[in-house]
Amino acid sequence: MDNSFKKKSKCRIIVDAMGGDFAPQNVVVGAVDALKESTSLELFLVGVTSEIKKALKQNNLNFAENSIIDAPEVISMKDIPTQALKSKPNSSISIGCKLVKEGNADAFVSAGNTGAMMAASTLIIGRIPGVGRPTMGAEIPSLNGRCFLFDVGAGKDAKAHHLLEYALMANIYASEIGGINNPTIGLLGMGEEDSKTNEVGLAAFKLLKDSGLNFIGNIEGRDILKGKVDIAVCDGFVGNILLKFGESVPDLLKYLLKQTAEKSFFNKIKIGLAKGVLKEALKSLDYQEQGGVPLLGVNGISIIGHGSSTAKAVKNMILRANEMHEKKLINKIQSAVSASKAIN
Amino acid sequence: MDNSFKKKSKCRIIVDAMGGDFAPQNVVVGAVDALKESTSLELFLVGVTSEIKKALKQNNLNFAENSIIDAPEVISMKDIPTQALKSKPNSSISIGCKLVKEGNADAFVSAGNTGAMMAASTLIIGRIPGVGRPTMGAEIPSLNGRCFLFDVGAGKDAKAHHLLEYALMANIYASEIGGINNPTIGLLGMGEEDSKTNEVGLAAFKLLKDSGLNFIGNIEGRDILKGKVDIAVCDGFVGNILLKFGESVPDLLKYLLKQTAEKSFFNKIKIGLAKGVLKEALKSLDYQEQGGVPLLGVNGISIIGHGSSTAKAVKNMILRANEMHEKKLINKIQSAVSASKAIN
Repeated sequence: MDNSFKKKSKCRIIVDAMGGDFAPQNVVVGAVDALKESTSLELFLVGVTSEIKKALKQNNLNFAENSIIDAPEVISMKDIPTQALKSKPNSSISIGCKLVKEGNADAFVSAGNTGAMMAASTLIIGRIPGVGRPTMGAEIPSLNGRCFLFDVGAGKDAKAHHLLEYALMANIYASEIGGINNPTIGLLGMGEEDSKTNEVGLAAFKLLKDSGLNFIGNIEGRDILKGKVDIAVCDGFVGNILLKFGESVPDLLKYLLKQTAEKSFFNKIKIGLAKGVLKEALKSLDYQEQGGVPLLGVNGISIIGHGSSTAKAVKNMILRANEMHEKKLINKIQSAVSASKAIN
Repeated sequence: MDNSFKKKSKCRIIVDAMGGDFAPQNVVVGAVDALKESTSLELFLVGVTSEIKKALKQNNLNFAENSIIDAPEVISMKDIPTQALKSKPNSSISIGCKLVKEGNADAFVSAGNTGAMMAASTLIIGRIPGVGRPTMGAEIPSLNGRCFLFDVGAGKDAKAHHLLEYALMANIYASEIGGINNPTIGLLGMGEEDSKTNEVGLAAFKLLKDSGLNFIGNIEGRDILKGKVDIAVCDGFVGNILLKFGESVPDLLKYLLKQTAEKSFFNKIKIGLAKGVLKEALKSLDYQEQGGVPLLGVNGISIIGHGSSTAKAVKNMILRANEMHEKKLINKIQSAVSASKAIN
């Protein structure tokens, strides 16, 4: 029988109803919105059942009752990740990851405690064989469309071979999800010259040069927005600082515009007229458009959202998880890692 | 005799006429402009005399001939710093630093090869006793005015005690030049919690906590533009990437606005009307306004400019050097370092 005649099974995604600063409100709205946009989804809300039902009712939303999975314990944003995972085994984060591990779900998405989500994904779902450290990546707008930045904080104090792993996994992600053919990869450093990097960078440079990837060498901070490469690789400490710095740019712009508007009546009028257009122009800087960042290297789909995720961000996380599932991203990362000589 | 009756001696500043992508043109214009703005300056242009004279003539500028110091060798932006300093002992960078070292000048400013300028300043002028590593800092606009970021690339792979040194020196700079009383200091990391940092950060946290400085703890990437602290301390590798990323933001904004303008006639009109106001609002993001970044920790005033420095940037570098001289910054850093228990 031809494969195309097979009935396509739906992508089963567990959504952490308790995750994020505005949970469960934004989560239930985002989940229902995602279901409206895609018929290939099967969604499950995991969390405190009474709170989920209350939020659904408040928003006049229908959601299949047998698709609500009770998780009586809640890991808050303030909880210390590893402690919380031990003391709260029945949290939405633990239960969500277990369902993926056991093959009862294809993906887990959460805008909850990032550290707990990373730890649970790594410890419960487990790593892909050969992967020393999972990595989180983000899309940054650039003059060339966008640049994928890996790692943005899954790890810190990365060794050279971790940076190689990040590049291998980012390469699959940018190809499959970004639709970029043979993406260019740069190693984030202090200049273009081979030597303009730190100690780890020097060693990673050699590994990347021999990796068979489309590695173009060291890049500088300005090359990300310039769009010099499709993928910028760095230690999670650097990527995390850079990502959060970038996220704070729109607020500074708003502040600077407001200050300028207050200087004169005409300034105010001009900025007022252009307000809508400015907002449109800055849309790509809004991380809510992306939804969340994927945690690559774990043996299942795990997407981690921003604590302040809107319903739209939750919806986008779900749709992204679905896309990763349809494109068999985990299998492709497994193959890439097992084919790498430097890792194995 | 009362000090106020003493004739105030002028600040003698050596300006690298060969430094920068647009040298000597921008340098001679910037130098003459600086002289117009301040009567407390005595400027010397160092470089290839014939080229300096040619640039002055082309711009119809007068400059005292006996204030031109010949340096027949030129270190280019592409030269490898340490090699260039050895092979070109008569470069403007070497001669400028020697004049400061010998006490024949109070400051040296250059928009030339950053690496060569850092190496020459450190090796020729020498470090302040107790300083393991000099540091470069930059001012970043924030919701609170500005944030001083140290280090932005003088070092890399900094140890914890280097980060403490950066904080001590930045504290003097932000107090004296920034006019901030008892500036708040944050250690750049991945979150607010004490543990949300890398290995070096953990050790630096302890040193900073016991330093007597106004240390408020770890900060995140977003806290810089938010203006949570007056000084953000980090390894030069991180700071350099962050600074260059920030510098590239205006180009991305221009690109996004252009794209939006092209979408419709009305968008184009609206953005066209607001253009001047937008430019004004984004003025503080322009690094040319700052001029250059000071290299603190060397035993004399050394300011390093951006390769693409305009005449205005050169002028601002010179005025900044003058201010550092008038406020006796080097003496104050010497005192702060020698008073620090953790360093001595």
